[in-house]
Amino acid sequence: MATPCIITVAITGSLPQKSDNPAVPITVSEQIESTQAAFEAGATLAHCHVRKDDGSPTSDPERFAALTEGLRKHCPGMVVQLSTGGRSGTGRERGGMIPLRPDMASLSTGSCNFPTRVYENSPELVDWLASEMLAYGVKPEIEVFDVSMLFQAAAMAADGRIKGPLHVQFVMGVKNAMPVDKEVFDFYIATLKRLAPDATWTGAGIGRNQIVLNEWSLAAGGHCRT
Amino acid sequence: MATPCIITVAITGSLPQKSDNPAVPITVSEQIESTQAAFEAGATLAHCHVRKDDGSPTSDPERFAALTEGLRKHCPGMVVQLSTGGRSGTGRERGGMIPLRPDMASLSTGSCNFPTRVYENSPELVDWLASEMLAYGVKPEIEVFDVSMLFQAAAMAADGRIKGPLHVQFVMGVKNAMPVDKEVFDFYIATLKRLAPDATWTGAGIGRNQIVLNEWSLAAGGHCRT
Ligand SMILES: [Zn+2]
Ligand SMILES: [Zn+2]
Ligand SMILES: [Zn+2]
Ligand SMILES: [Zn+2]
Repeated sequence: MATPCIITVAITGSLPQKSDNPAVPITVSEQIESTQAAFEAGATLAHCHVRKDDGSPTSDPERFAALTEGLRKHCPGMVVQLSTGGRSGTGRERGGMIPLRPDMASLSTGSCNFPTRVYENSPELVDWLASEMLAYGVKPEIEVFDVSMLFQAAAMAADGRIKGPLHVQFVMGVKNAMPVDKEVFDFYIATLKRLAPDATWTGAGIGRNQIVLNEWSLAAGGHCRT
Repeated sequence: MATPCIITVAITGSLPQKSDNPAVPITVSEQIESTQAAFEAGATLAHCHVRKDDGSPTSDPERFAALTEGLRKHCPGMVVQLSTGGRSGTGRERGGMIPLRPDMASLSTGSCNFPTRVYENSPELVDWLASEMLAYGVKPEIEVFDVSMLFQAAAMAADGRIKGPLHVQFVMGVKNAMPVDKEVFDFYIATLKRLAPDATWTGAGIGRNQIVLNEWSLAAGGHCRT
């Protein structure tokens, strides 16, 4: 995910971002409380980031462990997905939570531009994160920000670096990456069906674009149950 | 361009790479001689990199100046295009030759993965290279390695960061970037026609893929005369 979301509850859409709503949950206990509310309202997957006390993003495995433990207790059966996204650390720091064996973790299979920087996922880092997920039995959610990332994921599934079937999230609306464009969305789905016919997928839009992507995804048969 | 090509003579295809042919021209005088032969055989555009004496790539403006001067003299009327590609320097070093006012310079409008690293073109660097090209009257060749780079180029043309009409080169076959794929190629062309109907374009394949891309480009109406 591109944005510093706290908890994306994928079935019901994203909870508000900090920029939209200053009441967004920051501490682990706030996150658990907020996720439990969504869980009780029907959400089945929690996409998780953690923050330091000052609110800045981190990949601290201890915070992820506390969050995961709380979600297991308060949201039994909910799919816990931890973010390895690049805002919260650099290099292998970003995968320090994989040994916690969450159900899923995010995996971007390439690099692209973000609003103010390069979102760096070097070939070496992508392969290492994937190998950690294989080693700990964690299913990746492939975060696709551009078309070549989809080809890369399919190649990795084909040669065993990723255990299939793929689960892919198409992320649109991040400035300087892929805009929200229906033709690209349709091409994403067609290409996924061609390269990985057994894959599951979902679409994610940033901020107000989430509603658009939810509509397109529902109409095209996307889902997020894995 | 992704590979350390010395001179790509776009109309007749690429000259051999160093890995293919140890006789590839390295020094500026060898490059001029080799380009002149292609020019006399009908080539109209020279895509230029320069090398240090040890053969490693550089962005040294003095070498580019010597090469440009030689091409102007020996290949009158040939379009001289200088590479701002990332193998030959980092950051703004990569644009140090733009004040030489070549006819064209390459401009990648986003970041992606390359065989062993991230090809970094941060939003700030892309905007700076484009502004230098505007300031010195240099026409960019947009190097598109993935779909979002095409959207970025169209946005930059729309808001004046690039002077239109766009000239785009679609690069396929770089490991960890976009593979050689006909459906993607067709989508590139359709998207270009949608976003920038007045654009000119060409397709470039790496190594043996150049022949495939030349065939696809010719059949789809691509060209490289600007
Ligand atoms: Zn996220
Ligand atoms: Zn999902
Ligand atoms: Zn080149
Ligand atoms: Zn060209």
